[in-house]
Amino acid sequence: MKILAIEASGPVAGCAVLEDGLLIADYNVQYKKKHAQSLVPMMDEVKQMLELDLQTVDAIAIAKGPGSFTGLRIGAATAKGAALAMDRPIIPVPTVDSIAYNLYGTDSLICPLMDARRQQVYTGIYEWSPCHDSEDGRCFRTVRPQCVISISEIAQDLNARGRSVVFLGDGVPVSRDALKDLMTVPYSFAPAHLDRQRAAAVAALAWSYYQEEGQACMVSADDFRPEYLRLAQAEQEHSERRSFSLLLEK
Amino acid sequence: MKILAIEASGPVAGCAVLEDGLLIADYNVQYKKKHAQSLVPMMDEVKQMLELDLQTVDAIAIAKGPGSFTGLRIGAATAKGAALAMDRPIIPVPTVDSIAYNLYGTDSLICPLMDARRQQVYTGIYEWSPCHDSEDGRCFRTVRPQCVISISEIAQDLNARGRSVVFLGDGVPVSRDALKDLMTVPYSFAPAHLDRQRAAAVAALAWSYYQEEGQACMVSADDFRPEYLRLAQAEQEHSERRSFSLLLEK
Repeated sequence: MKILAIEASGPVAGCAVLEDGLLIADYNVQYKKKHAQSLVPMMDEVKQMLELDLQTVDAIAIAKGPGSFTGLRIGAATAKGAALAMDRPIIPVPTVDSIAYNLYGTDSLICPLMDARRQQVYTGIYEWSPCHDSEDGRCFRTVRPQCVISISEIAQDLNARGRSVVFLGDGVPVSRDALKDLMTVPYSFAPAHLDRQRAAAVAALAWSYYQEEGQACMVSADDFRPEYLRLAQAEQEHSERRSFSLLLEK
Repeated sequence: MKILAIEASGPVAGCAVLEDGLLIADYNVQYKKKHAQSLVPMMDEVKQMLELDLQTVDAIAIAKGPGSFTGLRIGAATAKGAALAMDRPIIPVPTVDSIAYNLYGTDSLICPLMDARRQQVYTGIYEWSPCHDSEDGRCFRTVRPQCVISISEIAQDLNARGRSVVFLGDGVPVSRDALKDLMTVPYSFAPAHLDRQRAAAVAALAWSYYQEEGQACMVSADDFRPEYLRLAQAEQEHSERRSFSLLLEK
């Protein structure tokens, strides 16, 4: 089972290739270039480096969102285009889950924070718990599924659980001061090489879905949709103007 | 502080760029190509993708060994050449430490296993312990420094410590069956995206050295030597033949 993974949901553009549980390539860049400029050239670079015949790829995994609207659309368009051309399915991976998946085996709760602007974060809560049906002896579990809320709401939830927390993600730099005031449980921050989106994490999580669920984790290129978790700003403003007009009409 | 990191000690060829604690690029390949064919083209790719002016790089970090003799020599030659040309220092990072650094915040002991052939592994034991002088709240600590021993020796050491263990590295597939017989404490294996050498981990560990020690973590291009931990097979055979001749002369 060969998986080609794409990550474009946030500040990182990345692609990775994982074959039967072995990571054979992983290329991620977090830089001022737009994903539209970097993503396809990066995929092409990896393809050439591995002398990769795309017909040997079995599925395309993608960080399905939430994230930057433009990033998600570029990622989705690239994945759908490639999947359609190669006649292969897509394995959608929730972005926040894949960020949390960077931290294997910690005893703390894992809380990714993605800056969602408008004083909100895309976040969720995860943990590694011992389990006996996994060959690894540990299971990655979603404690609170990905959502968009304020930093104080997620802090309140975490404090109520009474366990230590590891924060990571591009929402950390903007939330650091707020966390100092809000958090009552011990917490720490992941180091630089583990604290952002990473295509290899998307690939590895997709691989774990496939091992558990088989083809049930896959959708067709046609059916795949990014998961925005909230309306784009333009849609939101449009919807607000509409509600206001309806109110005036009453 | 901008660090360019190189990894060529084992099956992975990789390079990464980290600037003031932010990972801006990370490219790793584990493939049948030789490092001599892939390493410099990968560095050139990253340089072009980031439009990186090499004069803005402050130091070159490298996985100094142990590892494959050829890999270490190619990595060392590339790092020394670049450091000399750019007039920059080298930050040497023990290979086994940088593999262990893939696992942030686990409560288990971390035990990388690199296949060293001749029924031995390059290994070591590491942990994350709470500490108050670190901003992150956690410190990465060496419990047993990197060494070359048999799989049964390291298993015995780990069993005596009575704590759960996470194994990772390219020595896992060849040691899996032996571990089943040898281990008496609970253990698990890191998932695919975290279980090999990675240039970003070398960069992040070098950055942590720099934050703790400043320039004391650096050596000149001229002074840098890979750390083989044992003689190359040819040298070993030569040395054995020599001892044998001396014995005959007695």
